[in-house]
Amino acid sequence: MDAGFYVPVRIIGGENCVRKGAQHFAAYGRQALIVCGKSAAQNGALDDVKAALAANGQDAVVYDGIPQNPTVASVFTGARLAREYRADFVVAIGGGSPMDAAKAIAMLACQDAPEGLFDHKITSAVLPMIHIPTTAGTGSEVTPYAIITNDEKQTKQSISSPALFPHVAFLDGKYMATLPQSVTVNTAIDAISHAVEGMLSVRAGGMSDLFAKQALTLLFGEYESLLAGSYTPASRQNLLYGATLAGMVIANTGTSPVHGMGYSLTYFHGVPHGRANGLLLPNFLKECEKIWQGSTRKIFEALGMDAQEFAQRLKALLGRRKKLPEETLRDYAARAAKNKNIRNCRVPFTEENLYTVLKRSVG
Amino acid sequence: MDAGFYVPVRIIGGENCVRKGAQHFAAYGRQALIVCGKSAAQNGALDDVKAALAANGQDAVVYDGIPQNPTVASVFTGARLAREYRADFVVAIGGGSPMDAAKAIAMLACQDAPEGLFDHKITSAVLPMIHIPTTAGTGSEVTPYAIITNDEKQTKQSISSPALFPHVAFLDGKYMATLPQSVTVNTAIDAISHAVEGMLSVRAGGMSDLFAKQALTLLFGEYESLLAGSYTPASRQNLLYGATLAGMVIANTGTSPVHGMGYSLTYFHGVPHGRANGLLLPNFLKECEKIWQGSTRKIFEALGMDAQEFAQRLKALLGRRKKLPEETLRDYAARAAKNKNIRNCRVPFTEENLYTVLKRSVG
Repeated sequence: MDAGFYVPVRIIGGENCVRKGAQHFAAYGRQALIVCGKSAAQNGALDDVKAALAANGQDAVVYDGIPQNPTVASVFTGARLAREYRADFVVAIGGGSPMDAAKAIAMLACQDAPEGLFDHKITSAVLPMIHIPTTAGTGSEVTPYAIITNDEKQTKQSISSPALFPHVAFLDGKYMATLPQSVTVNTAIDAISHAVEGMLSVRAGGMSDLFAKQALTLLFGEYESLLAGSYTPASRQNLLYGATLAGMVIANTGTSPVHGMGYSLTYFHGVPHGRANGLLLPNFLKECEKIWQGSTRKIFEALGMDAQEFAQRLKALLGRRKKLPEETLRDYAARAAKNKNIRNCRVPFTEENLYTVLKRSVG
Repeated sequence: MDAGFYVPVRIIGGENCVRKGAQHFAAYGRQALIVCGKSAAQNGALDDVKAALAANGQDAVVYDGIPQNPTVASVFTGARLAREYRADFVVAIGGGSPMDAAKAIAMLACQDAPEGLFDHKITSAVLPMIHIPTTAGTGSEVTPYAIITNDEKQTKQSISSPALFPHVAFLDGKYMATLPQSVTVNTAIDAISHAVEGMLSVRAGGMSDLFAKQALTLLFGEYESLLAGSYTPASRQNLLYGATLAGMVIANTGTSPVHGMGYSLTYFHGVPHGRANGLLLPNFLKECEKIWQGSTRKIFEALGMDAQEFAQRLKALLGRRKKLPEETLRDYAARAAKNKNIRNCRVPFTEENLYTVLKRSVG
């Protein structure tokens, strides 16, 4: 049944909201560990956070050692830092990688995980977190998930717990002003994928579908900006709100086999996460419709376009794609078939169905 | 600035969600106080709650002594009952009156308020609450407010605290199947008013405006049903989701002078709350535009209609209205001018402006 809708995150939005909303940092203690990528210093977010903390008389240390697609080692290192510094809370600045890593760090700062990150049973003891996205895509600022690279299993894998919801999310599109066009497009496609995948979840419901629809309206409302690579502050903010709404969707529904397949493209070929989803999404929807006629109707109604137009629009954004050999596709289908996302989809996918999607998308 | 967006309520929606979601009651203890109006036994909600509790081996007593527009005495009585019964949590079933009263009861069950309900400083010690709306209007299931009648001040007055957010809200439109047409219309208008007033709040922001817009789309999407008094299960569910989204808006923005003026119509003339708002809303918007040109533009853009069409549509739903004498209108304007809602509105209203709205609406 409908899993319901639960997002216990305080969302603060609008231009300069971090500095204007400094009081929202005040409740969480004296010392913050700031977890960020290297770009946080360039886009102004790190300065804004430091100014907000200083205004409250709070101290901070910065940990910017999170690689793209965060490793297990990097989050254990961050957690050790948090413990040594006796951090009271964590501030995450960045795209999905720093934001997800910050969740694992905030957890590991309070919980030993001798059995390893992915086998650890997460309890509610987690440092409070304040998340500041600097890309508009992942939605991590409003989800209870952290996606970390699992080198043992050669994939990206999520850890999940209600305790991993950030307490506060600041949404200021100005931090995206300096994003490369490819990152803007790929992350927007990630958000589109979240909204679409959420509508196909076994846990989708009336409320999550409303959010998904609103997200798609906002994101495709900026389609011309995405295509032209030209953004006003308002269009940046729309993309960000769209991504956050799509994040609220997957926070409640989870994702689909698109993510399951996409992880291989990212892990083995370095395809950016959003791009990987976008490459697969149109053929995934076609396969859904082949397996279960009518299963994607509500999605195209929400999008206000048909499957063909949707595929063309994504294609125009994604550009040229690399082709992968047959045996590689078979391998990735087998890997994706083992991902729990499979069971989360209303449409029952076999390994053969997954292969078909991969073959048509990147074969 | 933008107050942000925070609704830490788990929302469970869809047909038969109370029975299907029985597990969501389980976490809150062994004994529940059920607070409801007299209709809860008729619309099936009380039976569903009892079945869900029984499935978990939980016990309950029912307190159905809440009058329309709940009195202070009735909530103190309910709190005494909760203490005597050692209730672990409160389940509220009904429209705004039982749902709001339940919040005050859940609070007073844990907190003495020797200084009186309205002067008491609410702490976080409040019994957990599960709210089940049986009208689609108030949005109380997702707000931190309880509106209680203050006979000393001869008005309705809100108490407010983050601790008054329910933990869970179940949204099932089937409980509205037996609602009288007038109640369906008046409560839908209440929800419309919430969305519109929220957009005019000093605390309105990009995120709350998105929710307001979505609420108005859902609510006016059922305009023909409201006019005809003919509802499908889907239209009942749309009205309910619309009302809940509008509730999420005012949870973050608060209401406007429309509510401030409406309380007098309800307190002194028994005009149902939603109807009172609806009578005032069109002329309130006209006055906003007179005071500050352009202040209502985003509202009519969200509605997809102009001020005249909006006024005509509400008029068609509201029907004949009673007229009040001059001195009464002056009195109500003076009372409304003292309400804190005034300061919550982006458009600065004087007592004279309020009088003009009252005069044009019910004069």
